[in-house]
Amino acid sequence: MAPGAKKGILERLDAGEIVFGDGGFVFALEKRGYVKAGPWTPEAAAEHPEAVRQLHREFLRAGSNVMQTFTFYASDDKLENRGNTLGFSGQQINEAACDLAREVANEGDALVAGGVSQTPSYLSCKSENDVKAIFKKQIDVFVKKDVDFLIAEYFEHVEEAEWAVQVLKSTGKPVAATMCIGPDGDLNGVSPGDCAVKLIKAGAQIVGINCHFDPMTCVKTVKMMKEGVEKAGLKAHYMCQPLAYHTPDCNCQGFIDLPEFPFSLEPRILTRWDMQQYAREAYNAGIRYIGGCCGFEPYHVRALAEELAPEKGSLPQGSEKHGIWGSGLEMHTKPWVRARARRDYWENLKPASGRPFCPAMANPSGWGVTKGHADLMQQKEATSKDQLKVLFDKSNKSN
Amino acid sequence: MAPGAKKGILERLDAGEIVFGDGGFVFALEKRGYVKAGPWTPEAAAEHPEAVRQLHREFLRAGSNVMQTFTFYASDDKLENRGNTLGFSGQQINEAACDLAREVANEGDALVAGGVSQTPSYLSCKSENDVKAIFKKQIDVFVKKDVDFLIAEYFEHVEEAEWAVQVLKSTGKPVAATMCIGPDGDLNGVSPGDCAVKLIKAGAQIVGINCHFDPMTCVKTVKMMKEGVEKAGLKAHYMCQPLAYHTPDCNCQGFIDLPEFPFSLEPRILTRWDMQQYAREAYNAGIRYIGGCCGFEPYHVRALAEELAPEKGSLPQGSEKHGIWGSGLEMHTKPWVRARARRDYWENLKPASGRPFCPAMANPSGWGVTKGHADLMQQKEATSKDQLKVLFDKSNKSN
Amino acid sequence: MAPGAKKGILERLDAGEIVFGDGGFVFALEKRGYVKAGPWTPEAAAEHPEAVRQLHREFLRAGSNVMQTFTFYASDDKLENRGNTLGFSGQQINEAACDLAREVANEGDALVAGGVSQTPSYLSCKSENDVKAIFKKQIDVFVKKDVDFLIAEYFEHVEEAEWAVQVLKSTGKPVAATMCIGPDGDLNGVSPGDCAVKLIKAGAQIVGINCHFDPMTCVKTVKMMKEGVEKAGLKAHYMCQPLAYHTPDCNCQGFIDLPEFPFSLEPRILTRWDMQQYAREAYNAGIRYIGGCCGFEPYHVRALAEELAPEKGSLPQGSEKHGIWGSGLEMHTKPWVRARARRDYWENLKPASGRPFCPAMANPSGWGVTKGHADLMQQKEATSKDQLKVLFDKSNKSN
Amino acid sequence: MAPGAKKGILERLDAGEIVFGDGGFVFALEKRGYVKAGPWTPEAAAEHPEAVRQLHREFLRAGSNVMQTFTFYASDDKLENRGNTLGFSGQQINEAACDLAREVANEGDALVAGGVSQTPSYLSCKSENDVKAIFKKQIDVFVKKDVDFLIAEYFEHVEEAEWAVQVLKSTGKPVAATMCIGPDGDLNGVSPGDCAVKLIKAGAQIVGINCHFDPMTCVKTVKMMKEGVEKAGLKAHYMCQPLAYHTPDCNCQGFIDLPEFPFSLEPRILTRWDMQQYAREAYNAGIRYIGGCCGFEPYHVRALAEELAPEKGSLPQGSEKHGIWGSGLEMHTKPWVRARARRDYWENLKPASGRPFCPAMANPSGWGVTKGHADLMQQKEATSKDQLKVLFDKSNKSN
Repeated sequence: MAPGAKKGILERLDAGEIVFGDGGFVFALEKRGYVKAGPWTPEAAAEHPEAVRQLHREFLRAGSNVMQTFTFYASDDKLENRGNTLGFSGQQINEAACDLAREVANEGDALVAGGVSQTPSYLSCKSENDVKAIFKKQIDVFVKKDVDFLIAEYFEHVEEAEWAVQVLKSTGKPVAATMCIGPDGDLNGVSPGDCAVKLIKAGAQIVGINCHFDPMTCVKTVKMMKEGVEKAGLKAHYMCQPLAYHTPDCNCQGFIDLPEFPFSLEPRILTRWDMQQYAREAYNAGIRYIGGCCGFEPYHVRALAEELAPEKGSLPQGSEKHGIWGSGLEMHTKPWVRARARRDYWENLKPASGRPFCPAMANPSGWGVTKGHADLMQQKEATSKDQLKVLFDKSNKSN
Repeated sequence: MAPGAKKGILERLDAGEIVFGDGGFVFALEKRGYVKAGPWTPEAAAEHPEAVRQLHREFLRAGSNVMQTFTFYASDDKLENRGNTLGFSGQQINEAACDLAREVANEGDALVAGGVSQTPSYLSCKSENDVKAIFKKQIDVFVKKDVDFLIAEYFEHVEEAEWAVQVLKSTGKPVAATMCIGPDGDLNGVSPGDCAVKLIKAGAQIVGINCHFDPMTCVKTVKMMKEGVEKAGLKAHYMCQPLAYHTPDCNCQGFIDLPEFPFSLEPRILTRWDMQQYAREAYNAGIRYIGGCCGFEPYHVRALAEELAPEKGSLPQGSEKHGIWGSGLEMHTKPWVRARARRDYWENLKPASGRPFCPAMANPSGWGVTKGHADLMQQKEATSKDQLKVLFDKSNKSN
Repeated sequence: MAPGAKKGILERLDAGEIVFGDGGFVFALEKRGYVKAGPWTPEAAAEHPEAVRQLHREFLRAGSNVMQTFTFYASDDKLENRGNTLGFSGQQINEAACDLAREVANEGDALVAGGVSQTPSYLSCKSENDVKAIFKKQIDVFVKKDVDFLIAEYFEHVEEAEWAVQVLKSTGKPVAATMCIGPDGDLNGVSPGDCAVKLIKAGAQIVGINCHFDPMTCVKTVKMMKEGVEKAGLKAHYMCQPLAYHTPDCNCQGFIDLPEFPFSLEPRILTRWDMQQYAREAYNAGIRYIGGCCGFEPYHVRALAEELAPEKGSLPQGSEKHGIWGSGLEMHTKPWVRARARRDYWENLKPASGRPFCPAMANPSGWGVTKGHADLMQQKEATSKDQLKVLFDKSNKSN
Repeated sequence: MAPGAKKGILERLDAGEIVFGDGGFVFALEKRGYVKAGPWTPEAAAEHPEAVRQLHREFLRAGSNVMQTFTFYASDDKLENRGNTLGFSGQQINEAACDLAREVANEGDALVAGGVSQTPSYLSCKSENDVKAIFKKQIDVFVKKDVDFLIAEYFEHVEEAEWAVQVLKSTGKPVAATMCIGPDGDLNGVSPGDCAVKLIKAGAQIVGINCHFDPMTCVKTVKMMKEGVEKAGLKAHYMCQPLAYHTPDCNCQGFIDLPEFPFSLEPRILTRWDMQQYAREAYNAGIRYIGGCCGFEPYHVRALAEELAPEKGSLPQGSEKHGIWGSGLEMHTKPWVRARARRDYWENLKPASGRPFCPAMANPSGWGVTKGHADLMQQKEATSKDQLKVLFDKSNKSN
């Protein structure tokens, strides 16, 4: 390692270090006004770099050791399909995202990870070659910009994830791969354990779960991956980047199916104390790359870092603005608020929703009751590849 | 009006224009890692200007017509008492805050408002002269930096608010005054109507409510102010800057008394659709300065602006990244999510909390059950001035 | 007083004794299979006397000092209108009910109270004479059967209640009068205080509230009655016979308007501990005739009697089968259930509903969303007498 | 079959008839004031026969085809241990219970079933001979009184249930056997399928589940029994008698572990519509003996009978006082209540609890937080036989 050079992702994990990920950019920037819900494309990297840079910086301060390039859904087929790119080419967006991630990573001890995610090409049943070509275009940028490692994330079908990993692997850089699945496995029913084995065989050194489910469900699914990997006599590092939403009531497609997705998820947002529980649970499960996805704000990542500060050996910079377990409240004006500056208060609190007319859980199948239920239900269950193709064509026609 | 000059706050309100406020900075920046909960002081204006600038910019994009200087709790007595200023003087913090607000205001059609809030000096029963001297130091900065108008906000005692208004008035600039009270009035039991009359008599041209309660409660309280003002034969403009938290269950001190304050309020966060209801309700009540306080994120302000776009005559810039009533979902990958791209879906949804072990409402008096209940309860009810002094001295000693 | 004769109702109340009422028969017998929801008529008194006798006996064992004749809705106009009398005449039903109440009352120290309730004749705007003639027919039976005192209950309009009281008064027997109203007053907006004054002036010695609202709301309304009576310089005894359902969310017509009425009220049923709170609250408010209405089961009355046993000076017979504050659990098989044999456990428990998909509160105006909303809403608000007549005619035609 | 003789239980089930059970007597009579919670013994059969007779009669009217003798916990060892028998011998109580069941059964087409349940002797690790001798004493009464068939119910350990079945079988009468277990199996971890196989091999012709869990969980567990039986190449009839409480949140010991057991279960009570769902689900699962246990009131059984009236070919007598799917409301006074006289209204309603401060689900492990947590937790998990002996001795000493 050259003097001053950072330790790579595998060096860190091999040494048993905890690596904190960042949070999901599309949801955070949607709330800040820079991403449009629906297309969810990352043109802001080129269009509003100051907003993306600032979010990177906040995650860095919160303890993130990885700056993921804001390249979610930045494959050319997605950008063209969604038509929201404002004159920026896919290459421009991917390059801008790399530059921003690198700029902020260099302000601290963070690595830059170039990321790819599932593609419309796969959903519309393009060939393996076609889909790989799509990934290749983003990878070329990542190589040119010399990111530190690569992440294939947010895949619902392990086959597509394997293809992505194979392309990423060809660069010689370390590869992580996470799927957005729960304990029931991918949309073709491949179990988490089998998915993990396939991803490792395709070349991933780090495997895990991101998005779609709440932290506890994601940790549980990573555990299933680990069992599968160990049973197959393989080895890997494990990674978890869940939602910051409570989703005890969702089915196999996760929070997408909840009636509240994506505009009324507020009552489900995890508190910082929920996050500390997640960090501990993940650590105990042997997961060492611990981060977040949709719904995560910088203070959520800071909570992960604070919970595991003893194991990590340091507090994040952002903790200068946070008292552990609410101890900052000792400075509050009101005496009864000062009385809350203690761990057991926050650990035992069952927070009220302030919404007496709302239920605690949603019925995911309730989404279609009001309109076209039967038709939509059929579409929802059409997850085999052939059916997907039909649906995809149909949808694009109707939009 | 000079060519290119912006219309002032009173010109706008006199002309019947809607003016959108911004959201509260301390809570938003706490989540981003730049403000410490407990002291809640705004040293970030000097310490991390890029973070404050970015938040201003996001509110501007969301439709805010006012950039409030990030000077909440920036009185010298508070800053010294809380000891969190990192070497910056009160003057430096106030000046930095003015510069940031002006810089971003000039990127659009927004005005800069210099803000003062309640002081430890009043709570510790300093004299009228002493308290006014504290306000005077901040005002001097606001005059030097030539803000467009002034806001006295977050007052629990109308007497202190009147003193603040008198100092602000001396500058010759327009003055707005908002109290953080509910329908029960200030902490000495002065009714909202009487508070408003007193504030107007002290010199305020705009009166209203900010913080401590949810939007519907705040609108209701402003209505009571309006009735009092009209009954007294006076005239004013009305302003409302509520929490972004549902608080149907709080008592006279608002969300401070809720067991969830300030670290487990997540389940109470308003959705964008709740915000549209608030905007309509406020407008119907005759309120024309409509903004937010703690808990507001930029997308909340954008929702206000979108609801009242027909009346305002324009959409905010940030709406380029938002489909009205969820219409952006027409671009979503899954057909059953596309089916949610319509108003009645979101208007009728009762969002679930995903928290089956948590209640819908909290018992505010539950805060002290576990520790020193009787003692704290006594302190809580000690709101008369003499009692406050005793408590304040006691608290400061114990901290 | 003849040797062995029971003390009358007024003697008891004048002496400061607590008098425990019974519970509502129509709801209890509906669950047991003897009353039909909808018509709610009491033909079971003649048709299934063993069932009615048994329920009287259970309330007696539970501590009831009054056996109300099961003559709710037993006016001839109601019985004929609802056509459910199975060949029994109104007189036969009323007589059978008196005999059953007397038989069981004589098994203990209870009094028999003959009861009348609101009539279709009033709702269809019959004359005062016509309505009084309807009451007169029931009263004739009560005089013949020599009940101990009379109760006019379940009136939504104070005018009709006054007419009833005047007829009852003519017998020379003590008269109690309760209305099924909340703090907003009767359906014409006459306040609880004014209602009570009118009832006393019409001849009632005991006034109060029954049915339609939960215990705490009823106690609050009786307090308002008491204030009105005292302000008018009058005197009375006070009585409260509320629902055994939690109804924090209902409007002026009480539980009738809740979407759950009458077949899904189960999650709202009060526990025995809730009942003890009610008994204490009622006692503290100066109410000495304390009973129940719809939803009450014998164990609910027993809870009232157990809470006030120190004041009453005795426990009810039924307490031989009940350990105070759960002490019977000391005999339970499982050790962790035995640990619940203590007051603070039950007093502090917030019982879960086991219904994660259901809300905590209902929106009363939600009842009509699905069908004929506007039309029904109009009907619902038509509470003035003229409007009622129109509606009544219309309803009867349409059924 | 002699002229006029009733068809036996096996003839009915062999012919594919639905047989409706009754509801649990201890909970129903506890609410009525005749059973003491804690000991839960049935001395009321001898002490208050009129109350027991009346409850039998109500279930008969509701559609029950079986009158179970009120002999739950009426084994001599239990009665002596609980010391609550008021001078009645075990034999007297068992005989009185048989007479009452027979008397009411003869008023309709119902059969009499003599019932035994788990014994303290087993829990304190008496020998097989000793435990069987206990059952034998009750069986002798059932033979003398010539009940129509026998039920061994409420067993947590399959071994004890097998012993009971063997004793019952020796009479030559048909034998049913139900355990109070969930999908996790008996307290020694024997699966539902294995339990069922063992019970059939011991001699039971009807097997199933009663008590401890809500209807849906019980139906699910009976399905697991059926799968086990079919896999073993055996045959049986299936039976289900669940709680009338929603228990989605309980663990292996069922509702006993819920913090609300037994005095605050009210918010969990099933509606009649929930019951109709249960009846349909049970029928679809191939269960033909469908009844209830703790929490069932007569109207709950009537709901089962009404749901399956098309399959059964008749409505119960009690339906003369009930309109199918709320149709009786067509006779209600208020038009907006009349609008509820339809199936879809009640089927789709999510009933509110009226309890905004209470959660939807309880944490069963929360029971011991306040007192002796660790100690009780240990006891709770001590379910192996040796541990049970120790605990039992310890408990009896401490009481």
